[in-house]
Amino acid sequence: MSLKDEALSLGKTAKAASRSLARLSSTVKNRALAAMAEDIERQSEFLLKENKKDVDQAVKVKLSSALVDRITLNPSRIQGMAKGLRDVAALPDPVGEVIKMWRRPNGLQVGRMRIPLGVIAIIYEARPNVTADAAALCVKSGNAVILRGGSEAHHSNRAIGAVLQEACASAGVPEGALQVAESKDRGLVHELLQLEDYIDLVIPRGGEELIRAVAQNSRIPVIKHYKGVCHVYVDDEASLNMAEKISLNAKVQRPGVCNAMETLLVHKAVAKDFLPPAIAKLRAAGVEVRGCDATQKLVPGVKPATEEDWSAEYLDLILAVRVVKDMDAAIEHIERYGSQHTESIITANYTKAREFLDRVDSSVVLVNASTRFNDGGELGLGAEMGISTSKIHAFGPMGLEELTTTKFIVFGDGQIRE
Amino acid sequence: MSLKDEALSLGKTAKAASRSLARLSSTVKNRALAAMAEDIERQSEFLLKENKKDVDQAVKVKLSSALVDRITLNPSRIQGMAKGLRDVAALPDPVGEVIKMWRRPNGLQVGRMRIPLGVIAIIYEARPNVTADAAALCVKSGNAVILRGGSEAHHSNRAIGAVLQEACASAGVPEGALQVAESKDRGLVHELLQLEDYIDLVIPRGGEELIRAVAQNSRIPVIKHYKGVCHVYVDDEASLNMAEKISLNAKVQRPGVCNAMETLLVHKAVAKDFLPPAIAKLRAAGVEVRGCDATQKLVPGVKPATEEDWSAEYLDLILAVRVVKDMDAAIEHIERYGSQHTESIITANYTKAREFLDRVDSSVVLVNASTRFNDGGELGLGAEMGISTSKIHAFGPMGLEELTTTKFIVFGDGQIRE
Repeated sequence: MSLKDEALSLGKTAKAASRSLARLSSTVKNRALAAMAEDIERQSEFLLKENKKDVDQAVKVKLSSALVDRITLNPSRIQGMAKGLRDVAALPDPVGEVIKMWRRPNGLQVGRMRIPLGVIAIIYEARPNVTADAAALCVKSGNAVILRGGSEAHHSNRAIGAVLQEACASAGVPEGALQVAESKDRGLVHELLQLEDYIDLVIPRGGEELIRAVAQNSRIPVIKHYKGVCHVYVDDEASLNMAEKISLNAKVQRPGVCNAMETLLVHKAVAKDFLPPAIAKLRAAGVEVRGCDATQKLVPGVKPATEEDWSAEYLDLILAVRVVKDMDAAIEHIERYGSQHTESIITANYTKAREFLDRVDSSVVLVNASTRFNDGGELGLGAEMGISTSKIHAFGPMGLEELTTTKFIVFGDGQIRE
Repeated sequence: MSLKDEALSLGKTAKAASRSLARLSSTVKNRALAAMAEDIERQSEFLLKENKKDVDQAVKVKLSSALVDRITLNPSRIQGMAKGLRDVAALPDPVGEVIKMWRRPNGLQVGRMRIPLGVIAIIYEARPNVTADAAALCVKSGNAVILRGGSEAHHSNRAIGAVLQEACASAGVPEGALQVAESKDRGLVHELLQLEDYIDLVIPRGGEELIRAVAQNSRIPVIKHYKGVCHVYVDDEASLNMAEKISLNAKVQRPGVCNAMETLLVHKAVAKDFLPPAIAKLRAAGVEVRGCDATQKLVPGVKPATEEDWSAEYLDLILAVRVVKDMDAAIEHIERYGSQHTESIITANYTKAREFLDRVDSSVVLVNASTRFNDGGELGLGAEMGISTSKIHAFGPMGLEELTTTKFIVFGDGQIRE
């Protein structure tokens, strides 16, 4: 079968399944999710065996140890997948919700009802648990899903897909609701991206290169999840104790993720009191600090930050620090170097808190809280499909609701237009 | 200036303006809209003079009379533009609305606040009033707009743009919030569609060819407004009197628009009673009827409908009629030939009304009402930017809210992630 034919078959099968999937009751969907969780646990030996093929191959071709770690499954990670599936089962079903209803002067009653998008393609890299996470969210939101993972986790993704498919079928979810692309050829992604008549949305998850390649080649709408260059701004009216705790948490609690702080901005009036002890604590936690001139003067041994540092997404124990004149300068810095992902202000001043929330154009803007809260679970959306930095359709963490759209439903009793 | 440079200048200017525009108070925006309406009226002679250049040229190159009519301005159409601007001023400002707010177990208060998308490019054809309508919605929703109308209305669009720009400036709206592309070269559209860093959304308005060309060449998200092949299904439990009134209204009240009925589906049990008198009324209103075999047998002189008729968007006084076995068959017909735009069921049966609303996958689904109600104004959204048949971001009529997105705002008091 040619790549084009394989893509077309995936698309057509998904589209056909999406019709009945859209009308599936929450009961059936939740039963499927429970069966998926159970089977993932029950088949863990099979999954580990298939995963070992990928890991052995990765070691053989000398992939980085970080990458090998990311594709490796172990009993606790398998447990994590099962838990994720059960967590999604416990969330409310978004489909059929009427988010608003009103009456028109002519008596028409108009409502907006949530419906699934239809068919979603997820293009991802490395971590095989995405297969289960993405499948869970799509099944629950009534969308058919085409999963295309990285070739380095090919056997793992195929095995997880097979287990999930069987569980779905046993629970009465239509065949074709969940498909894992077979071919390892990269050309398949390109073919999938042309199928605008069969696929409604593409979500790439992975490095910037993957996301750009998908966005540039797709004829289907793409929701992008670009990098997070997240800022904490410590205002002159901040509680310095709070600012220190939040800065430390935002940087070191999990440095390798997109909502970790990459640049710390500090009002000049408190820099002298705040920076030396804060940087000492950050360093004690293993953080390398790169600072502006003022920071270097205040704290011995700080390396100079270059222009590149201001827009760097380190995803590592490195932090850029800049002393700024005031909040305006902080916001200007964020507009210039930020990625519209997550920014936090630490202040006790009511007016500045309001102004920061209003002016900063990022998917999540916080007052007196860690940037690490930009996460679907932490913000209360339940599970998430990633964090969108596109403004169209979804901006910020994407939960189940963001995998739906609304149609208008209209109840009349004979109304015609005059 | 090359086309690329012209596009880039439009994009950069708009992006720069979008920052302050996003923070503009409703008072200033409404003042601007009032000034725009007033100046459109005050400058009507200038607008008519410029419009005459386009009309003369159109006549000279022998454009169709329908097209000449569409580009022609007259005092009543100018009045219509002014009224449209005032109507938008009277609508509530969507920006800053917190659509939802909740508290997390750790005390974080999380809200979703409406914000403008940023920069919107509108690519349209023929009717110069789109220039004013689109400008109004964009200003009110805090978006910068780049307007690119058809070359056949070049002078008109430029004149309207100039008048609106001056009114905006006088009211304190930042320069660059509203721009009309100067070049008549088609290549400019292509260049604009590459500017993903400066333009957030593209909305093409016009024929299918224009929309496809934009969608295929754009690196920016596009919201499509494809054709409307709208259906009315007359159930066996319909009030035939109501069904007749609605069918007549849906077909003839304004046949040239996307929410007019193109195909009438009739349950076989009522076809004999319903079709002869209904078709007689339709014919009396000038409608040509093309029918399936059963329809032809019931009503003498009905032309046979071909396969193409079932998916035709006539936009004219032509109607395809098909007798179907039951509601399932009607829904299957709609799934196969419809355009996910607008469908209506006429029935007195509660269960079927509910099922039709649930199962039909169109942007607006109605019970006992005319398809002509798929319209932002009629459904209560105020003005509209068109009717989206894409499911991503907006599905159905696009009002002011659909020109916004939401960001998460988070109020904390020192929360960190454990």
